[in-house]
Amino acid sequence: MSDLKLGDIKKKTSALFENVREQVPLIHQITNYVTVGDCANVTLAIGASPVMADDLAETEDIAAISSALVLNMGTLNERTIASMLASGKRANALGIPVIFDPVGAGASGLRNKTAKKILEQVDISILRGNLSEISFLAGQKASTRGVDVSAADAENDGTAIAQNTARQYRCVTAITGAVDIVSDGERTIAIKNGHPMLSKVTGTGCMTTALTAAFAAVSEDYLAAAVSGITAMGVAGEIAFEKAGDRGTGSFRIALMDAVSMLNSELIEARAKVEEA
Amino acid sequence: MSDLKLGDIKKKTSALFENVREQVPLIHQITNYVTVGDCANVTLAIGASPVMADDLAETEDIAAISSALVLNMGTLNERTIASMLASGKRANALGIPVIFDPVGAGASGLRNKTAKKILEQVDISILRGNLSEISFLAGQKASTRGVDVSAADAENDGTAIAQNTARQYRCVTAITGAVDIVSDGERTIAIKNGHPMLSKVTGTGCMTTALTAAFAAVSEDYLAAAVSGITAMGVAGEIAFEKAGDRGTGSFRIALMDAVSMLNSELIEARAKVEEA
Amino acid sequence: MSDLKLGDIKKKTSALFENVREQVPLIHQITNYVTVGDCANVTLAIGASPVMADDLAETEDIAAISSALVLNMGTLNERTIASMLASGKRANALGIPVIFDPVGAGASGLRNKTAKKILEQVDISILRGNLSEISFLAGQKASTRGVDVSAADAENDGTAIAQNTARQYRCVTAITGAVDIVSDGERTIAIKNGHPMLSKVTGTGCMTTALTAAFAAVSEDYLAAAVSGITAMGVAGEIAFEKAGDRGTGSFRIALMDAVSMLNSELIEARAKVEEA
Repeated sequence: MSDLKLGDIKKKTSALFENVREQVPLIHQITNYVTVGDCANVTLAIGASPVMADDLAETEDIAAISSALVLNMGTLNERTIASMLASGKRANALGIPVIFDPVGAGASGLRNKTAKKILEQVDISILRGNLSEISFLAGQKASTRGVDVSAADAENDGTAIAQNTARQYRCVTAITGAVDIVSDGERTIAIKNGHPMLSKVTGTGCMTTALTAAFAAVSEDYLAAAVSGITAMGVAGEIAFEKAGDRGTGSFRIALMDAVSMLNSELIEARAKVEEA
Repeated sequence: MSDLKLGDIKKKTSALFENVREQVPLIHQITNYVTVGDCANVTLAIGASPVMADDLAETEDIAAISSALVLNMGTLNERTIASMLASGKRANALGIPVIFDPVGAGASGLRNKTAKKILEQVDISILRGNLSEISFLAGQKASTRGVDVSAADAENDGTAIAQNTARQYRCVTAITGAVDIVSDGERTIAIKNGHPMLSKVTGTGCMTTALTAAFAAVSEDYLAAAVSGITAMGVAGEIAFEKAGDRGTGSFRIALMDAVSMLNSELIEARAKVEEA
Repeated sequence: MSDLKLGDIKKKTSALFENVREQVPLIHQITNYVTVGDCANVTLAIGASPVMADDLAETEDIAAISSALVLNMGTLNERTIASMLASGKRANALGIPVIFDPVGAGASGLRNKTAKKILEQVDISILRGNLSEISFLAGQKASTRGVDVSAADAENDGTAIAQNTARQYRCVTAITGAVDIVSDGERTIAIKNGHPMLSKVTGTGCMTTALTAAFAAVSEDYLAAAVSGITAMGVAGEIAFEKAGDRGTGSFRIALMDAVSMLNSELIEARAKVEEA
């Protein structure tokens, strides 16, 4: 794919790590109560600043001081759905990137309806989910099993789905899994970092979304921002396993946060496995 | 007690650890926002898969894909009480076990009323709480002090209360404390694993409930499932203290999650202190 | 300042650590879902007992069994604002100290309005926030940037603002930052413990508030209680860095909880840097 300029993407990706730490962007997150503490901590660990505010009455004020917005529908309800839609529209009006994590899309009518409503009413900059979730949004036959990817979907072609979804919703689409795929519809990237332990602790998907938002806040190239966010989590996962080894999932989770907080552009350049998909 | 067949219970209990890891059951949890992240992580650590969904609008859909339901009233409110009742009834209709953790029963009228409503309207498979909470539900004089067990209650006779409660509500009742008691009204078991440090970190009760649900999802013998869940937490607590020692409660909490994630049937067989009560 | 009697304050401060562990006061906390688990764990770590209950329907019952109330508006919404006001009034009627953490005051109209409403309708014993938040409540020009202190505010005179706010709202005011300032309007104390890493993990402010509430529950000298809470977090932060060093923010956060759980009056006497402001 002649448009890709993989070298440029890699260079941008690694530079974004310094940009976040210099600019300390404020990231507004309407997210779920399962992983919200981890999302706040990972936002601080990468060098950005989190603000978790989900009440409709403060949507506009918080949007006005933020540099990116995360909409994560992990534990959605009527009250927070209204806030997500209003915040998303406000972020659009202010030109702030919106990163959407459709947790559990395909698992319930409420989640399906909400995901579609958000995609219809809000211009999404980056859509990040697992293969089941994105397949569902792409209109493919999907079999979401709770919030984890199903074995059946793992056989689908992530690359084609990411490309089609990116074109359909005019956004960068990131499908994370054993191999991560990121596409803006034209350029498509595969990232081969990560470790199986990342699926043994809750919130690594949500945290990847939060990291992606931090990078999107400091770059208008959302493909590079998504690649940075996903590479950060993948490389940190590898380092965490090197440190925590077989001690168990508690130690791995702490080592993961440690690793994110110690990331820098040199480490990313040395370890990133970013390829054309 | 000639019906007990303690050897059978022990054999089943240890076998359940393999069953969970093979079947990876999806555990639907309507729980509190204090310990929800720990509950999700402990569910993953034991080899099951968590889905935290508390909105009434998705109750039926989530129940349809789940293998067990947890109702934990730690931070209850009007919205989640309605969801607990609807989810419980739906789980009953689908034949999915319901595990009820009446956090703080006895501490407020709202909690008392809610616990009674759940016990009236939903068939509970396993009821797990501390002595104050279960004493209150048994109609005994109880003095719940917040969410922790009161000293006065610690002197009560847990065995009789567990047996009576089990008969009254036709469910397995588990009272956790220095010695844990599990009864189905006929068979009554005492478990003498655990460590005092377990009471120094929040959520060990909630996590025990989540573990119990994972085992109930893969066995129709709910007595064995409760024994497995409680033994898992007790043995993990002992191992955690051996690892974290006197470093403090932060390290103990991480070592506890590590230990749960490394449990297996051999470890349980070697360390479980399961006796007739 | 002849009224200060710094030696008395120091003596009281260190004695409070033993008082908490002896009395194990129950601390009612209406707080945010980002840091609530850490607040519960830190409350246990210092030797008190947490109860997180935010539904209006159980306000009065929970107040009646508690020894202090925390109002933390980190993730406020219509439902919890009503509960905060009702709980605060009830605590006042029962003579229980109320500790108010105005998270993000200055960042949105909703937060500003809520903070003012709480200060008008509830007698606050201790107000704890960062310089931006307290400056806003003092009517100073403030520029709250999300939930973290802004660089512009860092140049303001924290001492004068703490004193004025204490007089204005007739409460002990604590401003935490690189140097912490505590004032009751007459006596003003500076605390020079702490470590920059404390600002790299979420919830250290919220946890300081929870600790302060535990001490206020066992002392009627709220200045000493606030000094104890803030010194506890500062000393623990120093010890945590000595233990976790450069491993990263995940390990620091665990070491911080370890350190709080191992604090005692000797350690505080040896390390506290408490001075006249």
